[in-house]
Amino acid sequence: MAASVDDVLQVRRHQPTRLEGFVDASFAFAVTLLVISLGHVPASVSEMLAALRDVPTFAVCFVLIARMWRNHRDWSRHYDLDDAGAVGLSLLLVFVVLIYVYPLRIVFSLMFSSLSGGWLAEHAIGIRTVFELRAAFVVFGLGGLAIWSVFALLYRHAGRQHAAIGLSAAERLVTRVLIRRNVAFALVALLSVALAATLPFAQWPATIWLPGLAYLLLIPAAARLRRAAARELQALAAAP
Amino acid sequence: MAASVDDVLQVRRHQPTRLEGFVDASFAFAVTLLVISLGHVPASVSEMLAALRDVPTFAVCFVLIARMWRNHRDWSRHYDLDDAGAVGLSLLLVFVVLIYVYPLRIVFSLMFSSLSGGWLAEHAIGIRTVFELRAAFVVFGLGGLAIWSVFALLYRHAGRQHAAIGLSAAERLVTRVLIRRNVAFALVALLSVALAATLPFAQWPATIWLPGLAYLLLIPAAARLRRAAARELQALAAAP
Amino acid sequence: MAASVDDVLQVRRHQPTRLEGFVDASFAFAVTLLVISLGHVPASVSEMLAALRDVPTFAVCFVLIARMWRNHRDWSRHYDLDDAGAVGLSLLLVFVVLIYVYPLRIVFSLMFSSLSGGWLAEHAIGIRTVFELRAAFVVFGLGGLAIWSVFALLYRHAGRQHAAIGLSAAERLVTRVLIRRNVAFALVALLSVALAATLPFAQWPATIWLPGLAYLLLIPAAARLRRAAARELQALAAAP
Amino acid sequence: MAASVDDVLQVRRHQPTRLEGFVDASFAFAVTLLVISLGHVPASVSEMLAALRDVPTFAVCFVLIARMWRNHRDWSRHYDLDDAGAVGLSLLLVFVVLIYVYPLRIVFSLMFSSLSGGWLAEHAIGIRTVFELRAAFVVFGLGGLAIWSVFALLYRHAGRQHAAIGLSAAERLVTRVLIRRNVAFALVALLSVALAATLPFAQWPATIWLPGLAYLLLIPAAARLRRAAARELQALAAAP
Repeated sequence: MAASVDDVLQVRRHQPTRLEGFVDASFAFAVTLLVISLGHVPASVSEMLAALRDVPTFAVCFVLIARMWRNHRDWSRHYDLDDAGAVGLSLLLVFVVLIYVYPLRIVFSLMFSSLSGGWLAEHAIGIRTVFELRAAFVVFGLGGLAIWSVFALLYRHAGRQHAAIGLSAAERLVTRVLIRRNVAFALVALLSVALAATLPFAQWPATIWLPGLAYLLLIPAAARLRRAAARELQALAAAP
Repeated sequence: MAASVDDVLQVRRHQPTRLEGFVDASFAFAVTLLVISLGHVPASVSEMLAALRDVPTFAVCFVLIARMWRNHRDWSRHYDLDDAGAVGLSLLLVFVVLIYVYPLRIVFSLMFSSLSGGWLAEHAIGIRTVFELRAAFVVFGLGGLAIWSVFALLYRHAGRQHAAIGLSAAERLVTRVLIRRNVAFALVALLSVALAATLPFAQWPATIWLPGLAYLLLIPAAARLRRAAARELQALAAAP
Repeated sequence: MAASVDDVLQVRRHQPTRLEGFVDASFAFAVTLLVISLGHVPASVSEMLAALRDVPTFAVCFVLIARMWRNHRDWSRHYDLDDAGAVGLSLLLVFVVLIYVYPLRIVFSLMFSSLSGGWLAEHAIGIRTVFELRAAFVVFGLGGLAIWSVFALLYRHAGRQHAAIGLSAAERLVTRVLIRRNVAFALVALLSVALAATLPFAQWPATIWLPGLAYLLLIPAAARLRRAAARELQALAAAP
Repeated sequence: MAASVDDVLQVRRHQPTRLEGFVDASFAFAVTLLVISLGHVPASVSEMLAALRDVPTFAVCFVLIARMWRNHRDWSRHYDLDDAGAVGLSLLLVFVVLIYVYPLRIVFSLMFSSLSGGWLAEHAIGIRTVFELRAAFVVFGLGGLAIWSVFALLYRHAGRQHAAIGLSAAERLVTRVLIRRNVAFALVALLSVALAATLPFAQWPATIWLPGLAYLLLIPAAARLRRAAARELQALAAAP
């Protein structure tokens, strides 16, 4: 029987390299700066309670950034690459994450604030114009596009080095699936950006949800790629 | 003779993994931001002296966060787990610690400020309403509940993997004791939260100390679990 | 056939030492503080959009600091030195980088701001006097001079320890080339400083570009050193 | 012939442990926060030039904190201890360093500011009262006392574990010398504190320099301990 998609890739290294030390420290700072609002030590109990209203926003942003970190960690552990391509793409990932820490926080703060009527946010952030709404979705979508593109490039880089790394046939297949998956996700982000840039929000107010709802496409996309990968893995295991 | 409870668990790894690098950098950043009040470089000797009044608050918060770090370090060294459960629970621990850095500081600043008549705090923080007092205790207690629950889950996760890790019978016993200990501590925090939420502070002012005094229960709870564990270890060593 | 200049130096170590952990954490912190404007969490979508105008400035500064980090990483991996000289020079590098994080940002912010008519910068930074223009170039040039001098010293230190490290003849040759390269770059920075300090900007306004254009000399200098090194490597490989 | 005092201690470990990762990250943050004035990004060239006046202060503080880091690194490399005592004393060192980052900066800013007539400091910090002058010296001296005492305890801890570590007779001798050296330095700091607290600054203005000049005693103390250690090492080597 074929192995499941998740445990095909072997762990090739446990100890971090310097590149990973740099990446880990940067991600650790990014989440710390996300959660600990600097220059903003609460000076009274009521300020502390107000600051805690941002916890749902922090939680979502923390989960998103922690998942990116985990994906990079798994990439490193599975492929054990430390060459110029790995360094360049990893540093690009750090750069995109650092640029997006605050926009991420704004977008989710906005979402929780509007969903809760302003309660779930220390400072209610309002969207004042249609332009601002478009801009928030476009910036968020470009961030997703950038992150998923970098991961697609990281997996492509690993796939090209398969001989040097010593990837098995099943591992090469899973690597190709991961490239496809990140490309598909990047395309979903691109679709959301296109919708945000072109939909007539002012005339048809109901369309303002569409750029956000577009991200729901990630779920069937992931499921479909997963099923296809399981079939291919089975075929590979069945082959003589 | 049976070994004491403390030195039953063997050290299985000395070198940090990437997960631990991430956790360590986050904890180090958290304590640094706790102690170094950002955006607040003292600009004169008198401001420096004022800032030093916060040292007792910093010391207590530093000790608490450093102990959490040490417990996580020991957990990693003893069980050497680096799987999805270890990653998820460790990141959850980092998130809870980051959320609680400033509330912790506020609560102890409040405590030292009121115990010293406002002297031991750079800015005297007053409790203005009964609601604020309740809220401070509830937030603090929920933090304790979260931290101890995460540690109980970490030890439960290790206990379940005992075969893969290769825990001895004595080590499995100590792991169970550590689960019980963290559950007991989490229940003490829950009791404090319940007292803070329900006691009639306004009518009986003397009750305002009870949610804080509830934490004294940690001492007999720890002692009792320790004695029970020593007896069980002895029984295990005596068994054929 | 002789190997190319880039892959002559062997990797002697993959795992970081404590010195490198310290250097990496400092660099990671420096780029994080560069990109995440502290004490400046955007509070609205329009503030977020304004902050994103600084992205080109961040990108250039990030690339420059990331390259310094990468050069230090390669130096460590190739020479595997952890003695007093390595510690002292590495800490000096960290110090110079930390001192220069904000000046670097100012200089590129100024450049993008003036190239784009004030659009590519959150806060348009203007040069008000000839003295300020001179000063910006002098500070920037002294930074380059310091960084390249530290790298020249690092390579000289490695070259002197060639017997202890076990450098091959080709590796010693490449080490000498890297010393020369960093000395040449430091001299270019020195030339720019001299031009900025002495050119009659007020009388001949066209000369204000010269201290910046001086850095274009880095390109032919690098190319020429590269060609000379390739020739020497070939001669070495051809020698009996 | 006997080895010199400096190279008696053997390096027992190169790779950092988690404790050291935590200590290194904390020291890296401390120096970064020292140098990069947070919440204070210069917004013009003249502000940048003003900020650069603090460079001498930063340099001295950086050197002092980097030396403490280096001493801790050497302690770890030479004794390779990772037990409860090592963890507790190392965390205590981190705490004292974090508490002292800003006071250190104030004291040297004050010194450079007064030596240069206010030029070498972004914001001239004046001492307004005799009490403030006493306080600055007392705070600075207590910091030195704390740091040197922690190092004395670290070396004492290592000396006690000599059998477990496997220290040679010469290494035990050097360990004892390092305890004495740190105790002697702590006593110099204590002398400076006593002078600052008791000297009649108001009546005899010339005495205001004495608490600072007391630190010059470190030089003969270090030289004398060094000579005594060299003699003892020679005697040890000569013994049958």
